[in-house]
Amino acid sequence: MDPLEYFFKPKSVAIVGASREKGKVGNVVVENFLVHKFRGGVYPVNPKARKILGLKCYSSVLDIPGKVDLAVVTVPAIVVPRVMRECYEKKVKAVVLITSGFEEIGEEKLSSELKELIAKNPGTRVVGPNCLGIMDLKGRNDSLFLPTDRLKRPKLGGISFISQSGALGSAIVDWAALKGYGMSKFVSYGNAMDVDEADLLEYLGKDPDTKVIVAYLEGVRRGRRFYEIAKRVSGKKPVIVIKGGVTEQSAQAAMSHTGSLAGSVEVYNAAFKQAGIVRADTLEEVFDFARVFVKEPEMKGPRVQIITNGGGYGVLAADSVSLNGLVLTEMNKRYLAEMRARMPHYVVLKNPIDLTGDATFERYKIALDYALKDERVDAIFLILLFQVPTLDEPRIIEYAAKLNKLKKKPLIVMTSGGKYVEDLREKLEGKGVNTFASPSKAANSLRVLYEYYSRKK
Amino acid sequence: MDPLEYFFKPKSVAIVGASREKGKVGNVVVENFLVHKFRGGVYPVNPKARKILGLKCYSSVLDIPGKVDLAVVTVPAIVVPRVMRECYEKKVKAVVLITSGFEEIGEEKLSSELKELIAKNPGTRVVGPNCLGIMDLKGRNDSLFLPTDRLKRPKLGGISFISQSGALGSAIVDWAALKGYGMSKFVSYGNAMDVDEADLLEYLGKDPDTKVIVAYLEGVRRGRRFYEIAKRVSGKKPVIVIKGGVTEQSAQAAMSHTGSLAGSVEVYNAAFKQAGIVRADTLEEVFDFARVFVKEPEMKGPRVQIITNGGGYGVLAADSVSLNGLVLTEMNKRYLAEMRARMPHYVVLKNPIDLTGDATFERYKIALDYALKDERVDAIFLILLFQVPTLDEPRIIEYAAKLNKLKKKPLIVMTSGGKYVEDLREKLEGKGVNTFASPSKAANSLRVLYEYYSRKK
Repeated sequence: MDPLEYFFKPKSVAIVGASREKGKVGNVVVENFLVHKFRGGVYPVNPKARKILGLKCYSSVLDIPGKVDLAVVTVPAIVVPRVMRECYEKKVKAVVLITSGFEEIGEEKLSSELKELIAKNPGTRVVGPNCLGIMDLKGRNDSLFLPTDRLKRPKLGGISFISQSGALGSAIVDWAALKGYGMSKFVSYGNAMDVDEADLLEYLGKDPDTKVIVAYLEGVRRGRRFYEIAKRVSGKKPVIVIKGGVTEQSAQAAMSHTGSLAGSVEVYNAAFKQAGIVRADTLEEVFDFARVFVKEPEMKGPRVQIITNGGGYGVLAADSVSLNGLVLTEMNKRYLAEMRARMPHYVVLKNPIDLTGDATFERYKIALDYALKDERVDAIFLILLFQVPTLDEPRIIEYAAKLNKLKKKPLIVMTSGGKYVEDLREKLEGKGVNTFASPSKAANSLRVLYEYYSRKK
Repeated sequence: MDPLEYFFKPKSVAIVGASREKGKVGNVVVENFLVHKFRGGVYPVNPKARKILGLKCYSSVLDIPGKVDLAVVTVPAIVVPRVMRECYEKKVKAVVLITSGFEEIGEEKLSSELKELIAKNPGTRVVGPNCLGIMDLKGRNDSLFLPTDRLKRPKLGGISFISQSGALGSAIVDWAALKGYGMSKFVSYGNAMDVDEADLLEYLGKDPDTKVIVAYLEGVRRGRRFYEIAKRVSGKKPVIVIKGGVTEQSAQAAMSHTGSLAGSVEVYNAAFKQAGIVRADTLEEVFDFARVFVKEPEMKGPRVQIITNGGGYGVLAADSVSLNGLVLTEMNKRYLAEMRARMPHYVVLKNPIDLTGDATFERYKIALDYALKDERVDAIFLILLFQVPTLDEPRIIEYAAKLNKLKKKPLIVMTSGGKYVEDLREKLEGKGVNTFASPSKAANSLRVLYEYYSRKK
C-alpha cells in the first residue's frame, strides 16, 4: 500500500488538540469528521477533556486503543515536537500538521527541531505544517479546519487539487461547490517539510478516482524530481498548474508568503511546457480547463465549426477560435448543399453557421447532425441565445446532451444572459454539457483540450 | 433640440404593425410600453384591429390625432416603403425600423428603395432596419421586442450601450440586469442605413445621463468621421469598444453578418488607440471596465498597494498588478514603522501587506488608513477572504464602503468563494464598492482606469 494512502483513506483518525470550544480549530476538525459521517474511528486527544462532541477523549495518542492511521495535529507550535514524538511511538502512519508558526514567521529553531524529527522517522509521513488540512470526498475524510457553513464542500467528481496556499485552496473548493464542479481530493500542503508537490502529484497520478490534477504552486522544492514526475503523470492524465510569483516584482511576494523561491520565470515556463503541464493564468481558467478534460472526449484536430442563432456572438466566437490558433473549418460541400436544401434561404451556411434570430430546434438539429458526422469538424462550438422566443429550449437542451453523451467529438455550448438563461445553462451543465458564458473562454478551453491531446500523440 | 433626442425622449409613440397576438413582435412592443409605464401617448397602428391591449388602434399613422415623435415599425419588409412614406407625410421625427429582410439577406432592390427614401427625407431620422429597438430607462421608453420575462431590464445607471448586433446587445442587457449594473440607454442599430455608430457616439457624448459609453462594433461606416467624434467624446467620458471580426478568418464572419467590412485589424487597432478608445477583448471586460469608470475616482499614478488576508491570493494579485504594467509600490517608511508597532509580528508589511489568515477588522483598518493617506499609493487593491472566521464582516464591509465614498483614490475589492462569500460580495457591490472574483480581472480593470486618466492629462 502506498504510504500516502493513509492521508486519504485512513481507518482511524486521532485529532490532537481537539477542543470543546465551538469555533476553535480543534473543535471544527472533530465536528467535520462527524458531519461528513467518516466511517472509521475518530479519537479526540486533549488531556483536559473527557468528552468532545459526544466522543471519548484521550490524554495522548499513546492512550488510544488499537492502531491510529492518521493524526490531525492542531496544538500550538511549541508543543508540536512532543506530540510528534508520541505519534512516532504510536507508529501513526500519517500526520496532517495544521499548526502554523514555523519557518514562515522566522521561527528557525523550532523549525529545525521539527525537520530533524521528521527526517529521523521516515515511516510516518507528514503533510504541513502551516496547512489547512486534507479533504477526500469519497473517503468522507475531511480535516479542513473551516466549518461547512462558511466553506461548502463540492460534490464528488474527478478533479483533485493540491495547493501550497491554504486560503487560495479553500476559496477554490468553496467556488467549486457553488458552481457544481465535482472534486475527488483537496490537499493544502503548506510548508511541505515532508510530503511535497512532487509526492502528491505522483500519488494522484496513480489514483483511479482522480481524472484531472490541478496544482497551485508558488515554488517547487526538488525541481528535477518534480519535472520527471510531472512529465510521467501528464502522459496519463492532464496536470493543470496555476503558478504564483511569475514576475520579478511578484516573486518577492511569494518569497514572503511560503518562503519558497519562485524562481526564474523563463525557467519555469520552459520546464512546465516540456513536462506537458497545462498552464492556467487565472483561477477561472483552472476550472474551465478541468471540466473540459473531465467531460469532453479527445479533440483530434484543430478544426472547429461554430453554430449560432446570433450573428454578433458568431463573429466574436470566430475571433476567439482564430485568436486561439484553432481553425474555422470549411464543412464538406455535399453536406452544405444538403443543409441548404433544408434551411430558409437567409440562413448563412459558412463558419459560423448563422441560423439567425428566428432559429428553431429543427434548424439546430440539422446543423448539429451534419457537423457531428463531418470529418472536417474536430469540435462543435454551439451558441444558444435563449433570449429569442422561437427556440424550443427543452428539445435543444435534450439534443445537445444526447450528442454530448455519444462522446464522438467535443461539443461545448456558449450562452449568456440573465436569470432565465442562467437556469437553462444550469440544466445543460446538469446533463453533462460544458457551458461557457463567453466566446473567449469557450475557445480558450477548446485550445487547451486540443493541445493536450495533440501532445499526447 | 438634438434630432436624435426623439429616439430617447419622445412625447408620443406609434407602433406600426401592432398585433393582438400574444408573443408577436408587434404585440410585445406595445406591451413593453405599457409595462414600463411610458408617460406619453402610445398609438398602435394596424388596419385590421380596433383595440390592442386596451389601446385604441389606428389604420395608419396618418389617422393619429396630434403629433407623433417616434414610430416603431415592425411590419413585413415589403410594406416598409409605404409605411415610411406615411411617416414622412405625418412628419414623424424618428423611426425605429425593427423589420429585417434587406441587404443582410441580399434583398438589394428593396434595400435601395428604402435607402433612397431615407436620403430624400432627412427631417426624419431612422434607426435600423434589422434591429432590436431602443431602451431608455429614464424615459421609460422601451421598444425592444423581447418580453421582460425572457429579457430582464437593468436598473437605472450611467452606462449606455450601442450595438450593431441585436442578439449580442440583448444578452448583455440581460446580463447587466442579472449582475445589478446600472444602465441609461441601449440602442441596437442594425444595418445603420441612416443613424450610425458615429451619430450615436456624438449624441451620447453630450447626454448628461451617460457616464460611460460602450459600443459593440463589427465595422465602422464613415471611418474618418467616427474617429474624429470618438476622439472628441473620449476626452469627456470613457468610450469602451468591443470589436468583432479581429482576424482575417473571423472578419469573413462579420461580413456575412451585417454586411460590413470589418477592415484591417492593424488599421482599427491604431485608429482606436489614437482616438483614446478603451478596448475590451471580452464581454466580461466590458462591464468590469464600465463599472470602474462609473464608481472609481481618478487614478493619478500606476502605484498599487495590495492588502490581503490570504498569502496565495496576495501573490496572484502581485503577479496581475505587475503583468498589467502597474507598480507594486513601496509605502512610506514612517508609515510602515508605525504599522509595525500596531500589528502582530508575523504580519508581513511589504507589498502585498499580508495580514495573514487570522486577520481582524482592526488590522484591516490600520492598513487601509495608512494606504489611503500615503502619497505613494495611487490605488488600493483589497483582498477579503471571508472563509476565515476571525474577520468581522459587517464592520470591514462598512469601512470599505465608507472609504470608497470619500473618492480619494480607487479602492477595489477582490473576493472569491461560494454562497456565503457571494452574499457578502453583493453587499459590498450594493454599497457602491467594485468587487472582482479574481486578481487578474481586478488588476486589468485598474490598468484601464490608470491608462484612461493618464491619457486625459
